[in-house]
Amino acid sequence: MRVEIWSDIACPWCYVGKARFEKALGAFPHRDEVEVVHRSFELDPHRAKGDVQPVLAMLSGKYGMSAAQAQAGEDNLGAQAAAEGLDYRTTGRDHGNTFDMHRLLHLARERGRQDELIQILYRANFAEERSVFSEGDERLVELAAEAGLDTEEARRVLADPAAYADAVRADEREAAELGANGVPFFVLDRAYGVSGAQPAEVFTQALTQAWGERSPLRLIEDGGAEACGPDGCEVPRT
Amino acid sequence: MRVEIWSDIACPWCYVGKARFEKALGAFPHRDEVEVVHRSFELDPHRAKGDVQPVLAMLSGKYGMSAAQAQAGEDNLGAQAAAEGLDYRTTGRDHGNTFDMHRLLHLARERGRQDELIQILYRANFAEERSVFSEGDERLVELAAEAGLDTEEARRVLADPAAYADAVRADEREAAELGANGVPFFVLDRAYGVSGAQPAEVFTQALTQAWGERSPLRLIEDGGAEACGPDGCEVPRT
Repeated sequence: MRVEIWSDIACPWCYVGKARFEKALGAFPHRDEVEVVHRSFELDPHRAKGDVQPVLAMLSGKYGMSAAQAQAGEDNLGAQAAAEGLDYRTTGRDHGNTFDMHRLLHLARERGRQDELIQILYRANFAEERSVFSEGDERLVELAAEAGLDTEEARRVLADPAAYADAVRADEREAAELGANGVPFFVLDRAYGVSGAQPAEVFTQALTQAWGERSPLRLIEDGGAEACGPDGCEVPRT
Repeated sequence: MRVEIWSDIACPWCYVGKARFEKALGAFPHRDEVEVVHRSFELDPHRAKGDVQPVLAMLSGKYGMSAAQAQAGEDNLGAQAAAEGLDYRTTGRDHGNTFDMHRLLHLARERGRQDELIQILYRANFAEERSVFSEGDERLVELAAEAGLDTEEARRVLADPAAYADAVRADEREAAELGANGVPFFVLDRAYGVSGAQPAEVFTQALTQAWGERSPLRLIEDGGAEACGPDGCEVPRT
């Protein structure tokens, strides 16, 4: 079974939702047969690369929250994160464009390091005092190396704005086609969707349901096929 | 839509079947939204890497064909290939283990060059006098370079027998789980299967049917989700 998770590094509910999903997955009997793929979604795609802002100021400016409302939202997120065993800094985080991180996550997927990298990016952004926005490419290279990526390769990808750009855009197009307007958005075998950081129980239900309904392939025009197998190649009757 | 094609470089019907599938795909209105992935299947996995044999001798030895029967089979394949516009050498080809080629095809998939490489391997094996079995790693490196892969990287992968070995084995396990005993085996969106080098019309039918039945995602427990979108992150009511 394949679970695709659309998310953004700048999305606190994605950080929390991933932990809830993983709690369900860890207890799922068929967990070894579940492949998880992270897909790109940008919350703030139109923000320029260098345009970095404190989170609280961004919340006030973009969504018209008062400073107290913005802080209350962050405190709430901090409590929800803590309930999942996650560290969360409720002050002092910053916000910016995440396109380069998504490009790097596509590289990481090709290197079998995607889950490691997204977790490291989340931790840096939400739990540690290591901005993923303010330190330029070198911070991302450093985090990529922690995820097991080759430093030079990560640097090359970051330096080339075209690298994996199409892959990021394709993920985002697909999210829209699937009806995802927000993240996290979980898609199980392209049959079931789970929107948001639902409780682990909901993910358990979704995994169980999708697993139970995996349908056998329907064969189109079977028999008499021209094929090769362990016993040789069929010679068609002419 | 995703089409997965299980095949082997040593499988003539895979070479012919790919052309038939591509004829159908080329005329399919939604072709730009079809992703094709090549998956590994070895016809002769127990043959040692260096154990190379002329195809006609292999057919006689392994399947107990007379020399005339083996040649008739090859002539027939040649005619079927020609009908698809493909060159096919009906004499002088050799046969061997394809594991390393499958490992290379997994590298190529990561580099976005998989379709190029499989086509080049097929051509070398079936149409050109460039054995993919008898010339050691350097022939495969040369073909990988023609497919746009980095020469050094291809050489490194070939020199390390563990590189992508698990990925090849996983594909083969999956083929068995899906009920594929021979190749080519086409799987459309994990919903429909097409076994063998069927006529292009059958692929057209399969593409049309699978496309028409793409089901919308069923959402599990939607509404009230803790999610972030372009308009900010939901603050749950506590």
